[in-house]
Amino acid sequence: MRVEIWSDIACPWCYVGKARFEKALDAFPHRDGVEVVHRSFELDPGRAKGDIQAVIPMLTEKYGMSEAQAQAGEENLGTLAAAEGLAYRAQGRDTGNTFDMHRLLHLAKERGRQDELMQAFYEANFTEERSVFGDDERLVELAAGAGLGEDEVRKVLADPAAYADDVRADEREAAELGANGVPFFVLDRKYGVSGAQPAEVFTQALEQAWASHSPLKLIQQDDAEACGPDGCAVPQQH
Amino acid sequence: MRVEIWSDIACPWCYVGKARFEKALDAFPHRDGVEVVHRSFELDPGRAKGDIQAVIPMLTEKYGMSEAQAQAGEENLGTLAAAEGLAYRAQGRDTGNTFDMHRLLHLAKERGRQDELMQAFYEANFTEERSVFGDDERLVELAAGAGLGEDEVRKVLADPAAYADDVRADEREAAELGANGVPFFVLDRKYGVSGAQPAEVFTQALEQAWASHSPLKLIQQDDAEACGPDGCAVPQQH
Repeated sequence: MRVEIWSDIACPWCYVGKARFEKALDAFPHRDGVEVVHRSFELDPGRAKGDIQAVIPMLTEKYGMSEAQAQAGEENLGTLAAAEGLAYRAQGRDTGNTFDMHRLLHLAKERGRQDELMQAFYEANFTEERSVFGDDERLVELAAGAGLGEDEVRKVLADPAAYADDVRADEREAAELGANGVPFFVLDRKYGVSGAQPAEVFTQALEQAWASHSPLKLIQQDDAEACGPDGCAVPQQH
Repeated sequence: MRVEIWSDIACPWCYVGKARFEKALDAFPHRDGVEVVHRSFELDPGRAKGDIQAVIPMLTEKYGMSEAQAQAGEENLGTLAAAEGLAYRAQGRDTGNTFDMHRLLHLAKERGRQDELMQAFYEANFTEERSVFGDDERLVELAAGAGLGEDEVRKVLADPAAYADDVRADEREAAELGANGVPFFVLDRKYGVSGAQPAEVFTQALEQAWASHSPLKLIQQDDAEACGPDGCAVPQQH
């Protein structure tokens, strides 16, 4: 069974939602039969690469909150994160363009290190003072910590086209699946869970998707004209 | 809707089956809503990279056919291929390890040129005298013809680890889906078609999969705690 998670590194609910989902997944009896894939979604795709801003002014400017509302929201997120055992830096975070991080997550997927890198990005963004924005070497360091080769990471960062199509394709798919916010969880392309739901909701979704996970229905007419490890079917004239 | 096709470049039924599938796909009213992905499957994964052999002796040695049987099979494949409008070189073909070609097909997938490269490999292998085996420059030429950059193709060929995990992952998935031969077509992970079935069977499969293609069922309890283009939900204490 496959669970795809659309999310953005800059999305606090994605950080919290991942922990809630993993709580359910770790307790799921068929855990070994579940593959998790992270998919790209940018909350603010129009933000230029160098445009880095503190979170509180961003919230007040972009969403019209008062500074007190914005700060209270961050504090509440910190409390909710703590309930999941997560650290959360409610003061002084910044935000910026996440496209390069999404490109690196696609590289990491090919290397089998995607979940490690996603978690490293979240922890760096939500718990550490040093910014993840505007500093390629910071991303190299995080990616290396997640098990990627520094050289290949630098190569991807230096080539803006690398994995760009993969990021765009994920975002197109999110739209096609009806996701207009993140985190968005899709189980076997059949069930969807929107938002950082409680772990019990993820448990229910996993159980439901597992129960309805059915083998392929084979559609065919003739004996298969196919090749296998023991050779190819001998052609018959139709 | 997504159709995944597991196949091997060295598999004549895959070459013929692709044409039959495309005949059905081209006439399918929802053609624009169908994404096609090629997946890797090696018929002879144990064959060493440099081990190139003429097809007729391979068939007699490996599958215990007489030379006359093997040659008649090739001639019949030529006739069936011709019925699909395909050229087929029934005499003098060779075979070898296809792993590198599968790795390049994964690179091509990232560049949006996968189908072009698959078709170029098939045509080179089944219709041209010059071998596709044992000559990296031949692969560079074919990949460039399909729209890839020569440099990136050479880089992938020079690094045996590049896209190797993707090839292995495809092969594992084929086994999990119950495919023990190719071509193997999977529609939305719900319907399977094994072998080079007649175009009508593919039409039926496309229609059935399209009709049962359903939107995601959303499972949730709370209002979504999520971030979207208009900001993040304000945290409530649970």
